[in-house]
Amino acid sequence: MNAPVTLPTAADVDAAARRIAGVAVRTPLINVPVLDARLGARVFLKAETLQRTGSFKFRGAYNKISSIPEARRAAGVVAYSSGNHAQGVAMAAQLCGMRATIVMPADAPRAKRERTAALGAEIVPYDRNTEDRAAIAARIVAERGAMLVPPYDDLFIIAGQGTIGKEIVEDMERLGLKPDIVVVGASGGGLAAGIALGVKARVPEAVLYAVEPEGFDDTLRSFRSGKRESNARMSGSICDALLSATPGELTFPITRKLIGQGFTVSDAEVGQAVRYAFEELKLVVEPGGAVGLAALLAGKLDVKGKIVAGVLSGGNVDAEMFAKLIAG
Amino acid sequence: MNAPVTLPTAADVDAAARRIAGVAVRTPLINVPVLDARLGARVFLKAETLQRTGSFKFRGAYNKISSIPEARRAAGVVAYSSGNHAQGVAMAAQLCGMRATIVMPADAPRAKRERTAALGAEIVPYDRNTEDRAAIAARIVAERGAMLVPPYDDLFIIAGQGTIGKEIVEDMERLGLKPDIVVVGASGGGLAAGIALGVKARVPEAVLYAVEPEGFDDTLRSFRSGKRESNARMSGSICDALLSATPGELTFPITRKLIGQGFTVSDAEVGQAVRYAFEELKLVVEPGGAVGLAALLAGKLDVKGKIVAGVLSGGNVDAEMFAKLIAG
Repeated sequence: MNAPVTLPTAADVDAAARRIAGVAVRTPLINVPVLDARLGARVFLKAETLQRTGSFKFRGAYNKISSIPEARRAAGVVAYSSGNHAQGVAMAAQLCGMRATIVMPADAPRAKRERTAALGAEIVPYDRNTEDRAAIAARIVAERGAMLVPPYDDLFIIAGQGTIGKEIVEDMERLGLKPDIVVVGASGGGLAAGIALGVKARVPEAVLYAVEPEGFDDTLRSFRSGKRESNARMSGSICDALLSATPGELTFPITRKLIGQGFTVSDAEVGQAVRYAFEELKLVVEPGGAVGLAALLAGKLDVKGKIVAGVLSGGNVDAEMFAKLIAG
Repeated sequence: MNAPVTLPTAADVDAAARRIAGVAVRTPLINVPVLDARLGARVFLKAETLQRTGSFKFRGAYNKISSIPEARRAAGVVAYSSGNHAQGVAMAAQLCGMRATIVMPADAPRAKRERTAALGAEIVPYDRNTEDRAAIAARIVAERGAMLVPPYDDLFIIAGQGTIGKEIVEDMERLGLKPDIVVVGASGGGLAAGIALGVKARVPEAVLYAVEPEGFDDTLRSFRSGKRESNARMSGSICDALLSATPGELTFPITRKLIGQGFTVSDAEVGQAVRYAFEELKLVVEPGGAVGLAALLAGKLDVKGKIVAGVLSGGNVDAEMFAKLIAG
């Protein structure tokens, strides 16, 4: 039996927004007429690809790390990550003057490894299929007294990602609009839970959908069974950013209550979305960052006449992989 | 001796802003901390890559075409263009319910040809090295009574592109900033002249620079000689969008007075900028749209401590060319 946990709320999202203001990029909410015409809807895409370190992960990481008390900072921070969280943590630590150690899969995209190292972090590689990254991180925490920055299952992380939902609603308000539908990728659930908190507190009638890669639909299966299900595999999708084993202990109660439904997308559908983003949106989106757009383009849900928000959650993709995807 | 011409003014830019409001995308002015750090400056990039049809050209085209009186609309419009103006004209004509005919180089990138046709325009191909596109367009004008939409040398076109300068200053004002330096690509000079009008009316002390591809520096040579010089060639740079023969009759007096200086960039420097935009900005920028960024990254000018604005003026690049450029 786990100890009782404190779930983040919309108030934590507001506090996070104050903490990251002026440090995180307030990314643009992009409306592309040609996408509206294709879907028969008004579609707004939050371009977190333009966030510091190229993904939304900086928001949660900075919210967490900047909240670490002065007395605990000297021991540094530790994180485990397939790449985007690693970069977010490395940069947040750098901005806070702290040392960062990142436990990273040995098969993570080269661009993500190199960029994390360039931000001054120490990288500890592990085998995605045989080793337990959380255990390796825990050992480093025990040895050094460093603070763990979890990828998603943390109040500060969830609240930080939630600022995206807050900004989506605020930016739409300025246009006199409210989202009817919000589509968000899910893996551990930090982004999905955060956005759900940020959106539903302001627009309770908004309907949210979680999107996962085929074969990595732990969140959707958990919605159906009511308990946290796991994925059979830890690799084998082009969405390298979305391969967490299971929804979080903190994220699941939130996503279950505020989202509760969603879709899977195939690698082919994700590839088509990456290509569409290149050709029509002129945005570089990594596969894991394009699952929401993929669900929209593949017609997984009926959005006709609706006001729809999606998140392009990251753009850290190797040139080689990107070239392959846009070639079609 | 030419007939006297009426030069556009900042008032024409303001009128254009009213005309395109709600139709053209108000593109985001993007600040990327990692670029700031690299240049030791605060750099803001106007992402016209996110404009309708993927380049700034829609602004001028819509400003021009939406101003055509009802009685003249049935005969349609004609334009000659290496591609971006073609798409801008095709979409503006479509939105105004008018027929568009585009005289386009036979060697224009496939993506630009296909996309223009997809917008319902009729395409008339010509040989960039042996034929005169203006003469072909003039013949169509004479035969059909269609209205010519010039690529740059037109009051409405210049004023439409100038809305970019207006928006840059307005968006910076909201941050309590003013541009010290504005870097803009030049070819026929519509974008450069327009932006100069839009910026200098609001921030007279701003210093502007024109950037051209090496070997296609007609504008810079014209600045030095004081008269409109021509390029020796009409092809041979990866910047297919910037290969006009000579500065315009209307644009040159404006760019000479309000800009008057600039830099050339090599194909290699442009390629590096396209790759940088992919890797660090997560934006798809075509070679001709990246010359300003290329000048900044190549250190052509000293921007240390300055507030700098640049324009990423287009993102219409074939997947094959883009893959080659980002592979480095």
